Formats: sequence, C-alpha cells, structure tokens
Amino acid sequence: MGGIEPNFDRLGGLIPVVVQDYTSGEILMLAFMNRQAWGETLRTRLATYWSRSRNELWVKGEQSGNLQEVKEIYVDCNEDTVLLKVTQQGGGACHTGHRSCFYRRLEGGELKEIDERVFDPEEVYR
Amino acid sequence: MGGIEPNFDRLGGLIPVVVQDYTSGEILMLAFMNRQAWGETLRTRLATYWSRSRNELWVKGEQSGNLQEVKEIYVDCNEDTVLLKVTQQGGGACHTGHRSCFYRRLEGGELKEIDERVFDPEEVYR
Repeated sequence: MGGIEPNFDRLGGLIPVVVQDYTSGEILMLAFMNRQAWGETLRTRLATYWSRSRNELWVKGEQSGNLQEVKEIYVDCNEDTVLLKVTQQGGGACHTGHRSCFYRRLEGGELKEIDERVFDPEEVYR
Repeated sequence: MGGIEPNFDRLGGLIPVVVQDYTSGEILMLAFMNRQAWGETLRTRLATYWSRSRNELWVKGEQSGNLQEVKEIYVDCNEDTVLLKVTQQGGGACHTGHRSCFYRRLEGGELKEIDERVFDPEEVYR
C-alpha cells in the first residue's frame, strides 16, 4: 500500500465508500470503512467494511456468500471518500435480496420499487 | 414530498449522497445533505448539499456554473443514504477541474490520474 491512506479524521475514524459494479456501472451500496477495514480490503481484495450497526469489522458477504471482489479502487479529490469497483458474487449486494441497496426511486412523493429481488434473504441469512 | 424523508440521525444530521451521471453512469462525487438541503433539492431539482468545510448550504455549481440537474432520486434500504442521478452542467463536478472527483486510481500503491481536466478551475472559481 505504501504511504497512501485516506483521511479518516473527518467522520470520527470512518470514510464513506461508494460501491459500484465493475461491469454495469450500477451503484450497489454505500458503506463505511475504518483504517483496519481499508487495510484488510487492500490485503485480501475482498471488500471489507466497518459495520456501524454491529460495531465490528465486516467482510461483505462472509455470511451470505455474496462477496465483493475488488477490481479497482479510486480516491476522491479530498482523499476522504473511496470508490470501489467490484465484481458482486451471489447476484446481489443488498440484505433485502435486491441487487442494489438503491432499489427504490422517489416518484411523485413516494418510494417505488424499481427492481425485483434476485435472491431470497431468508434462505441466504439463516 | 409527502412524508418521505431519509433518516438524518445516523451521522449527526447529515446523510451521504452519491452523485452519478444520469447518462454515463459515472460516479461524479460524494456529498452530504442535511434536512434543509434535502428539501431544497426536491423543491428546485438542483442538487443542494451541506458543505462541511464552509458549514453552509451549498447549491452545487452556484459559483462555478457547474449546476447538477436532478433527474432521479433513489433511497437505499436503510433510508439513510441517497443516490442522485444528475445531468452535470459545465462539464465537470470536481473543484480540481476534473469531470469526477474520483479521477485517481490506486495502482501499485500509488494514486494515478486517469482523467484529464475538462475545465480550468482558476478560470471558473474566481
């Protein structure tokens, strides 16, 4: 990795990470990394985040099998946000069973589902 | 807008906003909104953020002319992150003159510029 490291100071030790499908360009999710998650992602090339709800390191897909292989890593102008281009294993990134966490669009003041489920979360998260 | 509003409580009144080019799918930037910025974005259909460095409401492009017309708005599964699909005016989103803020890719432990400037920031930000 050398000396390049994002600035983790602006959000109390975390950086936002935009996760984009390497092939289709679809936005799959937004997650957060701390310094340890960043290091693990570089080392393993599997997207590793910091779970704010569970307060622990989180290898994405370790439970569901829906791992994210990191193909490319981009750093923004301020070096406080990262973009990962990944190959999504298992069809979907979202714990609801959708391919993307952004499966609802705002239309006329209501959220409308624009994508069907690609897996059954009850089968995957047992 | 009706009653739909993201959850602003998880980051002290802010939500992360992923900004994607409506046509090309390129990620242009990541910014933050507070409740007021969210309301203004819906009302004006021009992307409006909360500037954490200047601590003020920020109509993206109000100074540079590089406005972002909001074409579509997506909300994620947890309703604490938003994705905007926009038409970027003026060629670029980044204050450095690049089209995207993610103009550097990590390669062999170094950040490599992968995109040329599309405008001269010294001319645009006077």
